[in-house]
Amino acid sequence: MKIGIIGSGNVGGALGTRWAQAGHRVIFGSRNPASDDMRQLAASAGSTARAASFREALDAAELLLLATPWPATRTVVEGLGDLAGKVLIDATNPLLPNLSGLECGTTTSGAEQVAGWARGAKVVKAFNTVGFNIMANPAFGPERPVMFYCGDDAAAKQTVRPLVEQLGFEAIDAGPLSQARLLEPFALLWISLAYAQGQGREIAFKLLRR
Amino acid sequence: MKIGIIGSGNVGGALGTRWAQAGHRVIFGSRNPASDDMRQLAASAGSTARAASFREALDAAELLLLATPWPATRTVVEGLGDLAGKVLIDATNPLLPNLSGLECGTTTSGAEQVAGWARGAKVVKAFNTVGFNIMANPAFGPERPVMFYCGDDAAAKQTVRPLVEQLGFEAIDAGPLSQARLLEPFALLWISLAYAQGQGREIAFKLLRR
Repeated sequence: MKIGIIGSGNVGGALGTRWAQAGHRVIFGSRNPASDDMRQLAASAGSTARAASFREALDAAELLLLATPWPATRTVVEGLGDLAGKVLIDATNPLLPNLSGLECGTTTSGAEQVAGWARGAKVVKAFNTVGFNIMANPAFGPERPVMFYCGDDAAAKQTVRPLVEQLGFEAIDAGPLSQARLLEPFALLWISLAYAQGQGREIAFKLLRR
Repeated sequence: MKIGIIGSGNVGGALGTRWAQAGHRVIFGSRNPASDDMRQLAASAGSTARAASFREALDAAELLLLATPWPATRTVVEGLGDLAGKVLIDATNPLLPNLSGLECGTTTSGAEQVAGWARGAKVVKAFNTVGFNIMANPAFGPERPVMFYCGDDAAAKQTVRPLVEQLGFEAIDAGPLSQARLLEPFALLWISLAYAQGQGREIAFKLLRR
């Protein structure tokens, strides 16, 4: 699959690298694709990855990963123009700058706002609930952390699901896109445990069943 | 410890029973303490448990578990009067009647509202993130699910923590009471997985570390 990374920071970099190593063609989109950081990222991800502008990443890709910092998200997404038919994985969180909360409450979610801005796209929320270090390597010995995804388009979710599984997560469908109202606070919980509560970043959640 | 259960439904019943079996003195508070259901609950919980009015439960207990249905919560809590010095574990979730969302968003939480109503109480949010069946028996083979708690009073949290651990959970301090803005959506996630997403109620989360 051809995957465009919109926002190639920690999250976009980790996911794009893992996907490239799994054999996908990955285009790391950036405002500054010629920067040293971007060249280094693409090089380390291997021969199936390259750095490009957002525009190129969009045009070349069947699927987009949105992993922008929240303050840039609206501008970036609206700047992409028509996204009809694209699957867009929204991995953002509408975090307040000091991580003290979410910019919008449970009457809506960042994902739903993104869906409103991303004209024509089939938005799936995923990869927003753990840090990039866990996405880079989700193995906890023999144990496999959970990764939730949600969205309103069943086919789009079927597309995203194996991308979650290929990284080593247990993929769990959390329902419609409005469930991002729960997954975004879930993300903030992870964040607050890792930092404010001193658990560190090497944590994740496993779904237990019996 | 003497534990008063304010709202002895599924959650209050499960927790109170476990605590009674662990040797605590449990007073199951109810609007109808003489009902068959309440008598049966107290009897099955053993000789250290009894059913009583909310008033009696409050007066007899060092610690209160609030496990009321959300629509009744404000009236019940305000009716308790002065709670100065009491630890109150808030296990409620401000769920909309059809479980489609939370009555209040991430600009506040049910727990914070409860803290406003429960004059003088040291509110700790806990036991709101899994179903009562998990609270009744948290064992998943050798694995131990996580239970978060949060609150603004350190001593109150130190009181609550062993009550979490005694049931077999890993107790994790999630920070100040405002973190209930995250734990309440976490609860709704569990609920939606169990029901709408067809995972069933025999699920829980484990905190993985490495």
